Amino acid sequence: MLRTSIASITTKRTMITAHAVLYTQHGEPKDVLFTQKYEIDDDNLDSNSILVKTIASPINPSDINQIQGVYPSKPEKTLNYQTSEPAAPCGNEGLFKVIKIGSQVQNFQPGDWVIPSQVNFGTWRTHALGNSKDFIKISNKLTINQGATISVNPLTAYLMLTHYIKLNPQDWFIQNGGTSAVGKYAIQIGKLLGVNSISVIRDRPNLEEVKETLKTLGATKVITEEENNSKEFGSNIKQWVKETNGDIKLALNCVGGKSSSGIARKLGPNGLMLTYGGMSMQPVTIPTSLYIFKNFTSAGFWVTELLKNNKELKTKTLNQIIDWYEKGELKDAPSKDLEYDGNEELSKVYIEGIADKSGKQLVNYK
Amino acid sequence: MLRTSIASITTKRTMITAHAVLYTQHGEPKDVLFTQKYEIDDDNLDSNSILVKTIASPINPSDINQIQGVYPSKPEKTLNYQTSEPAAPCGNEGLFKVIKIGSQVQNFQPGDWVIPSQVNFGTWRTHALGNSKDFIKISNKLTINQGATISVNPLTAYLMLTHYIKLNPQDWFIQNGGTSAVGKYAIQIGKLLGVNSISVIRDRPNLEEVKETLKTLGATKVITEEENNSKEFGSNIKQWVKETNGDIKLALNCVGGKSSSGIARKLGPNGLMLTYGGMSMQPVTIPTSLYIFKNFTSAGFWVTELLKNNKELKTKTLNQIIDWYEKGELKDAPSKDLEYDGNEELSKVYIEGIADKSGKQLVNYK
Repeated sequence: MLRTSIASITTKRTMITAHAVLYTQHGEPKDVLFTQKYEIDDDNLDSNSILVKTIASPINPSDINQIQGVYPSKPEKTLNYQTSEPAAPCGNEGLFKVIKIGSQVQNFQPGDWVIPSQVNFGTWRTHALGNSKDFIKISNKLTINQGATISVNPLTAYLMLTHYIKLNPQDWFIQNGGTSAVGKYAIQIGKLLGVNSISVIRDRPNLEEVKETLKTLGATKVITEEENNSKEFGSNIKQWVKETNGDIKLALNCVGGKSSSGIARKLGPNGLMLTYGGMSMQPVTIPTSLYIFKNFTSAGFWVTELLKNNKELKTKTLNQIIDWYEKGELKDAPSKDLEYDGNEELSKVYIEGIADKSGKQLVNYK
Repeated sequence: MLRTSIASITTKRTMITAHAVLYTQHGEPKDVLFTQKYEIDDDNLDSNSILVKTIASPINPSDINQIQGVYPSKPEKTLNYQTSEPAAPCGNEGLFKVIKIGSQVQNFQPGDWVIPSQVNFGTWRTHALGNSKDFIKISNKLTINQGATISVNPLTAYLMLTHYIKLNPQDWFIQNGGTSAVGKYAIQIGKLLGVNSISVIRDRPNLEEVKETLKTLGATKVITEEENNSKEFGSNIKQWVKETNGDIKLALNCVGGKSSSGIARKLGPNGLMLTYGGMSMQPVTIPTSLYIFKNFTSAGFWVTELLKNNKELKTKTLNQIIDWYEKGELKDAPSKDLEYDGNEELSKVYIEGIADKSGKQLVNYK
């Protein structure tokens, strides 16, 4: 017994103290999040283990909804973080660097950049211990922001444009929320795929400037919500589509309400609308005649569900995005950088980030 | 020249004088319909021709909408009826009896019952001349009403229940408009297919009586629109579905508005709603979360379009319906019988039928 104790003390001295943001019950993040310190024995890694250190992880709206308990995909509560009661980890996207591997690990090396292969892995923490199934290796030629935010928005845009309908060079897609992160990825990816796009944006004082920005990204046409709702303006769109001898085959909806019926009406026969968000908080409202006489179909898109059991599709899609990033052909959506230097409480950094509504937040770990 | 004239006079004496209800321009039926008399030379049929006499043809809402010019599927205007300007025929469903065939016609005999193989054939007329592509032979063991109304409502109900999703014995479908003609076919066909159904109907003074009628037809459960809209009542439905270890996989919508969101919410994950009507005149309104988190899909159903270029599917479906009719396992939706005895103007009979809103009208030709 004495020998064991001494051995255990010796081991303890070399352990890494990890910090993780957790919650044991749902609520507003500022009320329920706490920082848990727990130890990882990096000198005695299991043969299949991979130890990673966090480079950066973003705060996504769905991360917050998970903490609030209003998101259908939830991390499991466990005792893995050495808490006294079961606790759940926060964060779904993030970029890690491999710092140590077990003796049997193949295909991963210290220094590799990796991202979680699944959601609910917990990315708001300084370190993580996993195995080869938990991680996907990505190029470390990306920027930190590109790597840390690659799993949700670019994959959503790419898969909506490619997974359901084959768009040909003469074809079009139409989307609302053209200035959103996914909207900007869709514009760029549409251009890279060689198809035409119409992006609907809200009217604003600097409308022409924003239109130009989106056209520079690759938008074929940019219209306002007023134009989207106008019967008269519809004939302009018909003319654009006629000029390419194509059809508007796909609509991407992240707004709902009138905006969704507006883009749905622009579709040609047998068109598909994919709903991936509902920023207006209004339901998706579609005239009966579109369904019956234009064979319109309205479906949903949730990247989490689509990729849950399809690592092959996820890897293939990631590789396409990484390729475009490396070639400089695709621009990422910028984040506001927060910094965690190890001196303050980790949960506080995220709580401050959540309170800041000025843009998407990325916590960088020094 | 003289000989030809005499020959033509001789031929003329044996001709059949057909009557057809036509229109040259769109409008309200009472304003635009007229009866055209034209001659069919039944002694000199082309070798591939089939001459039929009308037994009965119904007045469907879509027939009226076609005349008004507000229906997307339209008959061509032609000079086939010996009019001075191009005119279009009325009526899409109907039952004919073969009275004479050309020398090369196979598979059809005088006395056979036939229906048009396509819509827009014109069924509001006493006679029609066509060929084997224009007609589908059906059993003459059916009642006249069964034969004359087989092409739209029973096929719609059967195809919605079978063509898109495989329902297993533990599964359910839910529909609104449970007392409509299609609704009653769907209830019966659901039962014949061995699956469970929930039919939503409007509250009414004789509610319990109507519920019993639908249950006698084969409805598993009948609920009111109030129950369809009630969150609390939802738990009853969950319990029913739990008891069969199944899922509500399909929703059939002919109402729109709140009723459509009510039935859509009852669907399990990956559910499909088919919209085939919009009786409330309200658009189909679906919460965004159903699309994203339950992978809900909303599509349209139009029997005309589905069967337009698929005679094989039409014949196969007809044969199933005919088989059930012959075995007495399926009840047709009753019509109100009107009679055309050749003495009054044909268009007047249909105009009177259109004005009578007391139920579906069937014009019987004596």
